[in-house]
Amino acid sequence: MSNTQVKLKSKPEGNPNTDNFEVIAANTPVPADGEILCKTLYLSLDPYMRGQISGRHISGTINPGDLMRGECVGEVIDPNGADFKIGDKITFHGGWQKYFTAPASDVKPVDSRLEPASLALGIMGMPGLTAYAGVFYLGELKETDTVLVSAASGAVGSMVGQMALNLGCRVIGIAGSDEKCGWLHDTAGFHGTINYKTEELADAIRRECPNGVDYYFDNVGGDMLDTVMQQLAIGARVVLCGLMAQYNTDVIPPGPNPATIIKARATVRGLVVYDFFDKIQEFLDYAIPLLDSDKIKYTEDVSDGLDQAPEAFARLMNGKNFGKTIIKVS
Amino acid sequence: MSNTQVKLKSKPEGNPNTDNFEVIAANTPVPADGEILCKTLYLSLDPYMRGQISGRHISGTINPGDLMRGECVGEVIDPNGADFKIGDKITFHGGWQKYFTAPASDVKPVDSRLEPASLALGIMGMPGLTAYAGVFYLGELKETDTVLVSAASGAVGSMVGQMALNLGCRVIGIAGSDEKCGWLHDTAGFHGTINYKTEELADAIRRECPNGVDYYFDNVGGDMLDTVMQQLAIGARVVLCGLMAQYNTDVIPPGPNPATIIKARATVRGLVVYDFFDKIQEFLDYAIPLLDSDKIKYTEDVSDGLDQAPEAFARLMNGKNFGKTIIKVS
Repeated sequence: MSNTQVKLKSKPEGNPNTDNFEVIAANTPVPADGEILCKTLYLSLDPYMRGQISGRHISGTINPGDLMRGECVGEVIDPNGADFKIGDKITFHGGWQKYFTAPASDVKPVDSRLEPASLALGIMGMPGLTAYAGVFYLGELKETDTVLVSAASGAVGSMVGQMALNLGCRVIGIAGSDEKCGWLHDTAGFHGTINYKTEELADAIRRECPNGVDYYFDNVGGDMLDTVMQQLAIGARVVLCGLMAQYNTDVIPPGPNPATIIKARATVRGLVVYDFFDKIQEFLDYAIPLLDSDKIKYTEDVSDGLDQAPEAFARLMNGKNFGKTIIKVS
Repeated sequence: MSNTQVKLKSKPEGNPNTDNFEVIAANTPVPADGEILCKTLYLSLDPYMRGQISGRHISGTINPGDLMRGECVGEVIDPNGADFKIGDKITFHGGWQKYFTAPASDVKPVDSRLEPASLALGIMGMPGLTAYAGVFYLGELKETDTVLVSAASGAVGSMVGQMALNLGCRVIGIAGSDEKCGWLHDTAGFHGTINYKTEELADAIRRECPNGVDYYFDNVGGDMLDTVMQQLAIGARVVLCGLMAQYNTDVIPPGPNPATIIKARATVRGLVVYDFFDKIQEFLDYAIPLLDSDKIKYTEDVSDGLDQAPEAFARLMNGKNFGKTIIKVS
């Protein structure tokens, strides 16, 4: 039983590629007192990891030589005296590795209603909770709102849009391929979509949101945020959550001119999901019934094997993924 | 009884100067049905007028040849059948002129408790109401908050600061001269001040707000906003109200990077005082007792005669005014 780990080899300039990582064999960790040993079933890959590599994420920095961090679904293989059974499924930030140890008090059980368990890393995990916080705690959504979501086919964006649909809002998604836009419209039920790679964004927003944008959930920042801010309706709410546009850059770009906020009497809020961890059960009790009644759709972009993680991460950061990026580790 | 008017002669490039205006003689206006005739006692000069000249203010554009706009305290000299007495004092956007007509239904009586009546244009008028809205409607101020205010010795800024002091907050003011900073500290009772022309702003904010800025009321935008946004405390609230830094520019500058908002989980709101006109009586009933009990201080920068308005406006836009800029017209 030997461990496999993926470490950062070098800091990428711009988009990461597989050369920035190395896959190595390592000893399987031994749980200390109070720790349990788990086998990784699924690993979540997320854009914030690029921010950790740049040293610009609030959760800290990943340096060359460090194990890549990330949230996993693990299966308990040694409870080590703690109140778990072998085979229990839990989530923990175990990192990009095949086995991990974790303080028994820090792991979270996977809700038994979730099938596959990888959902606990995506639409029913931290990304879903992020969306829930943005819609229900920072959004003040009304059913008359026109809602615009960037990175709309991702785990966070697709959940923001579908929860807004469930509230009765008009929902428009921005995504980067016709395939993603097709899924958003035909499967997830979005009212309209914008392919930002083939359409002129400002014109497309005018077409889809003729009375302006009442609520914008931003996963991107950069020029896209700037363009949307020019078309806010009076009283708009903007939730800033992700900065995809600047994770790959060394120079911090500026943001939208403050006049856009004043003119719209807008409320702009920053969302960090860590502040809402105590709402996870409330979120699941809201969202699982919607999933079970087919009112929430999802897509996963699953790669098989930990050695595929570097390439899957590069695709994610190039916007070439479709749906929640998951590595099936064991 | 002949009228005097000040018109825009040419659009300034950068800071306005007296050559951009012309003072002319004109016929005294004749009130139409439903209008009253007033003599201007006081005219208010405000930075937003520079935005009107640039065509970038939500209230519309002033072009060369147009009468300069502005709010006045007027004395009714011909009620023309309306329910006013000769000598009644009212406020109205009468413009930069000695006499104006106004629809009787559109003028607002000056609260009889206000002495001098020019206060109805400053700390007890639209600027004071602006501050009140920023503190009580958009601010969610707590007495444990560290409050930072830019343009702090102006009518809006000084009222934001003093209302925050009255709530028990720690209040720091940013102003552009030692004289202004001295007044803020010694007379208005601010806990600390920053002279942004002689101090390095980021260092001075660290000194005065060692635990970060909980509430920032921004009259300026530009680099100052950018610098403050880097030092927000978790849960900070930012009210964007004025854009002094860009009124004189042709190129719209960008704003702060959105990461500043996300990291602080900040709430940033745009304030337009027009949305709060229905709160004017509530504001006066709150503020006049504070003024009467000497808990609100103010300074006015009064020039005598309408022909002084262009120079006073140029000084205002250069930050050379001290206190609310008022023209005593009659």
